[in-house]
Order: sequence, then structure tokens, then C-alpha cells
Amino acid sequence: MSPWEVNVRKAAPYVPGEQPGDKGIVKLNTNENPYQPPGEVLRQLETIDGDLLRRYPDPDMKLLVTALSRRYGVASEQVFVGVGSDDVLSMAFLAFFHGSRPVLFPDITYSFYDVWAEVYGIPYERIPVDGEFRVVKEDYFRENGGIVLANPNAPTGLSMPLEQIEEIVARNRESVVILDEAYVDFGGVSALPLIEKYDNLLVVQTFSKSRSMAGMRIGFAMGSKKLIGYLYSIRNSVNSYTMNPVSLRLGARITEEEQWFQDTCGRIIATRERVKKELKALGFVFPDSDANFIFASHPAYDAKKLFLALREAKIFVRYFEKPRISQYLRITVGTDRQMDQLLDFLKNYVRKES
Amino acid sequence: MSPWEVNVRKAAPYVPGEQPGDKGIVKLNTNENPYQPPGEVLRQLETIDGDLLRRYPDPDMKLLVTALSRRYGVASEQVFVGVGSDDVLSMAFLAFFHGSRPVLFPDITYSFYDVWAEVYGIPYERIPVDGEFRVVKEDYFRENGGIVLANPNAPTGLSMPLEQIEEIVARNRESVVILDEAYVDFGGVSALPLIEKYDNLLVVQTFSKSRSMAGMRIGFAMGSKKLIGYLYSIRNSVNSYTMNPVSLRLGARITEEEQWFQDTCGRIIATRERVKKELKALGFVFPDSDANFIFASHPAYDAKKLFLALREAKIFVRYFEKPRISQYLRITVGTDRQMDQLLDFLKNYVRKES
Repeated sequence: MSPWEVNVRKAAPYVPGEQPGDKGIVKLNTNENPYQPPGEVLRQLETIDGDLLRRYPDPDMKLLVTALSRRYGVASEQVFVGVGSDDVLSMAFLAFFHGSRPVLFPDITYSFYDVWAEVYGIPYERIPVDGEFRVVKEDYFRENGGIVLANPNAPTGLSMPLEQIEEIVARNRESVVILDEAYVDFGGVSALPLIEKYDNLLVVQTFSKSRSMAGMRIGFAMGSKKLIGYLYSIRNSVNSYTMNPVSLRLGARITEEEQWFQDTCGRIIATRERVKKELKALGFVFPDSDANFIFASHPAYDAKKLFLALREAKIFVRYFEKPRISQYLRITVGTDRQMDQLLDFLKNYVRKES
Repeated sequence: MSPWEVNVRKAAPYVPGEQPGDKGIVKLNTNENPYQPPGEVLRQLETIDGDLLRRYPDPDMKLLVTALSRRYGVASEQVFVGVGSDDVLSMAFLAFFHGSRPVLFPDITYSFYDVWAEVYGIPYERIPVDGEFRVVKEDYFRENGGIVLANPNAPTGLSMPLEQIEEIVARNRESVVILDEAYVDFGGVSALPLIEKYDNLLVVQTFSKSRSMAGMRIGFAMGSKKLIGYLYSIRNSVNSYTMNPVSLRLGARITEEEQWFQDTCGRIIATRERVKKELKALGFVFPDSDANFIFASHPAYDAKKLFLALREAKIFVRYFEKPRISQYLRITVGTDRQMDQLLDFLKNYVRKES
């Protein structure tokens, strides 16, 4: 060990799903949208010129902030934008969880929350979800330094009713409650209307799932002007310019594509509901997902073995070797054709192994 | 004040130069490159398709890392890439300055260093530069938790000889030394060769100045595999995917444009040297800049008044209302035509005011 290594912050990073280069893979492992953005979005690239490359971008990200404020009916001072919702969430952890009491989040949830808490030295406590993977609201009625909930939750796909969310926010006016709504557009109910009533509620969403733009790294948060102001002041203390003009322009354009957005989410929901029926018929069990993935387990087959067998067949799904969920696979809802490839494989597997 | 505000991390952000929308402005305030990237770079946009938007980008940023490792003759494991050098520096502060001893940097330098130290709760000490704005190497021969030096320094433009840099690095094997070489391509000497000898030296550079890509947000660091490994592990604990495929592709392409790069830097250096002579003739004094800006003062005219008069005439330069440097203006080296506009104004100003 070199002597300077004593002062290094050691971190156990979040491990994202694989991004294989092989185009032949049925890629159901990172909850990407299987449908491309409309052509109008891609055509925005033609508006990029040498001066936009040469000059610093707009630090206020007005183009995209305005598009979002219009789409969601909030003031532009209530909108913050970052390099994917991970960037937004990371900034929010850094900004709002600077106390000594533990931040609370479920034991089964997006596995980046504890990574951010660790890297920024934030005390936290993981609250177990119940036997059916449900978040129990009463567990969050206690002293804390902040609350983070994904709704729908990942990787379970389960939604919490809006009344329960509101109760948690209302009972925790002394902490910021971050609601990670990355998957809300696939059938969940957004808590966005509550931001007018509760200045401690931050709603975070992303362009990576329902808006087919994981590549361009766009996430956003909406909340009270006060909350959003603090986020900007932390962002401006880390990096004055995070969003390049390409992301801003393509992001603003796709925000206006309302019909495409509704249609695409509708298609994914329809596929998901069909696949749920077929998985059930094959003996799989799963929480009733409101997201663009299904978190499935089979009483008769080991999840890790099945994961590896799928991988062998070039069908990538996500497997978490973690307590309580090591018998589950998180399967992204792809196109109908991709899901048929998956289902064909599973039918075969169930037949062969029994 | 709302009760949750007690837990908010308060930050006094870095304030970047203005980004006015008005195209009629002679913009010499943010050290952008006045020349556009070559057409081949812009044409890379034609390779972007809907699948690249839809899917997560390559978290390892191979395309750009490979281009940089080839250009600079280092292993790809010695290269880290981020959203501008601010992102890279911010990650480096978070990763390497996790001790209790103060991190050292000059009192006159890039004013983001103390902002990062503040936001991440890192103890630091600002070491005064001498009366001629020179960094005194002996001041860095003492116990510390890390060292950060900009070379050439900002906003002075002054370079430190490589032997002095090496002495500082060699005498501080117990800390990481970050060398911010944002402006090195305009006549400075890079410390890059030293990374093979000292595993505690991190060299940080950017595409925002010499490579005309401030808009696309690309910065990079080079150092020992160990240092770079730690940077990745912090990056992966904050945001798995920071670089979108557009930045990666355009960045990789411009890295290969060696002739354009040499020519452009040469033009900017030639303009700078001419402007130095003309400023001198007008009675201005300034440190002998190796960067793409000149940090100038006039014994007879108040800098703030001059700054405001320039602004009125739509010539934007940078003014810092700070101790020791409040009688200076940082003037970016633009095109010859832009500099003539500036010089015409100054000639007139000096005549009128005297």
C-alpha cells in the first residue's frame, strides 16, 4: 500500500446491469425502454453547430427546465435537472441529509441508496419490507434524518397508495422525503400534486425508462422552490455545467412528444400484463408490478441457475445475490417479440427440468 | 425557515462567468476557444441512432478512454473521464482528500477548489502566492492532506517549472498531488511523464479550452492505475453513467485531430503574444501568461470601472472582486478580430480618461 492511500475514501460501488456490445442479445437486464424515441427527437441533432460545442452550455438548462415545467404544470423554479436521476438523487442526498439522525429507506429497494449514504458519510437505516415486499408506512413514523422511497419500488415493482405516501410526508415535516418515481409512468400514481402542499417532498423522475433516453443521461426533480433552490446551490458547488446542449435539446423535444409517450407506456403496460399471465401459467410467482419489469421467482427452480441458463441462451435478465431476494429475477418488459423469446425459453426450461 | 432546513448542507457555490444569449457580444469572459472544432467532429453526430439514445451508454467510456490513452501514450487503466474537468476534480477531491490534515492550495487560484473542499467537508488551507503571484514550492514542503495546483495557474496564467512541480510531488509521497492542467496546451509543460514515476500524482486536463468542446462537458485525468482505480470506484458510487454517447464519440474524434489541435493552439498563442505587446504599450501590467487568457491591470485605471465600461460596450471579460486581485481583469484570448475590438476600446478608454 502506498502511504497516500490512508487518505483515500474507500467505496463499494453500485453495480449496474451489464451493457454487452453483442446486438444479438435479448437485453432485459437494465429496464431500458425497448422502443426508440420518435424521429423528431433524433432530428434535433441537426440543430447542433460548432458554436454550441465550443461554448459552455446554459448552466440554468432553461430549454429543458421550461419544457418540463410546461409538461408537469409547475413553475420553472420547481424543476431541477441532472445527468440521469442518479445524478439528481446523489445531489439530493448530499444536499438534504446533512444531519446526525439516520436516513430511512426499505431493505429491499434501489441498491444505490446505501451506496450514496456510504460515500457521503450519511447515517442510515434499512427498514425491512413485509413478507410480501410491501413498505409498511408506520415504520416511517419515527425520528429520522430523511426518508427515501422508490414508488413503484425497485426491484419489486410494487406501488404504495398515494394516501400512504402523503401520510409519511405529512408526519415527517422535519425531514426531506425523496420519492424516486423512476418507474411511475408505467401505471403508478405520481405524488407530484403533493409538492404544492408539502415543501419537504422531492419527486424525482427520469428520461431513462418511459422516455427512451437512458443514453442521454437526463433525470429531474420537482419540489418546492426552496428545495429546488438548495439542489441548485449544491449542483453549483460541484459542477456548474452538467448538461450539454445535445441532452438539453433532445430532452426538451421528447418532453413535447405526449402522444408518443402515452402510446409507448401503453404498449409496455399491455405487454407486461400479458407476460404476467403467461409467467403465472408456468408457475412463477411475483409481486404485482406497476413498473416496466417483473420480479419473478419459481418455487421449483433455483433463480441463479435459471439466470445463468438464460444468459447462456443470450437472454439477459438481472439477478441480485442478496438476502431475501436471491430466488428472484428482475425481468425488464421488452417488445412482445423479445418477451416471446423469453417465454419460449422458460416453457422449454420448465418442461425439461421437471 | 421550515424545520427540515436544519439538515440541509449549505453551500456558497462557485460563480462561473456569464453565458449571455446575445450573439453580438465579444465574449472574452470564460476562456472558451474562439475556433470551432473541425467539421469531421460535428459529422460524428450523424452516427447517433435511436438505439444509442434508448440504451444506457458504456459505463467504461472505452471509445474516449482508448483515444486518450493512444494520444497521450499511457495505458487505458491510467485514464479517467468525466463531465468536464470540474466533474473530474470534484470526484478527485471526494476520493483522495479523506484525511484530517488540511489540503493545501494557493490563495490565488481556480476558485472552485475551496468550494469543493467546503461542500465535502475537507479541511484546507490557502497558501499565499508571492508578490508576483508566483507559487513558492517550499510552502508545500510540510504536513498536509493533499495538494492542488493549477499549472499554468488561474487566473494569473503563470507556469511553474516542471522541476519545481516534481520536487513538490516527490516531497509529498504521503498525499495525492492534483495538478490541474486545464490551460497547459497554450505553452505550458505538462507533468504527464511524471505519473510513471510518482503514483501519487494526478494530472487533470479538459476538452473545454484547447479542444473547443466546453459545450460537450469532457474532462479527463491521468495517473497511476491505482489512483485511477480509486477515481472509478468513487464515480461508480455516485453515478454509474456520466458520459453520453454523443460526448464520447465527438470527444474521441477530436482527440485524433492532432494537426487541427496544434494549429489552433498555435494561433491562440500567437494572438496572445501580440496582445501582450499591445497591452504593454497601453500601460497595462500582467503576469507573463502561458494560458489562453491574460490577467491584466492598469496602474492608472480602476479595474472594476473598466470592467463595467467594457461590459457596456458589449465586451465581456472576467472580474473577480476578491482580495489581492480586485485591480485585475482576466481577458480570454479570442480571435484576432475580437482582440482588435478589445484593443480599440482600450486605446480609446486610455485616451479619454487621461
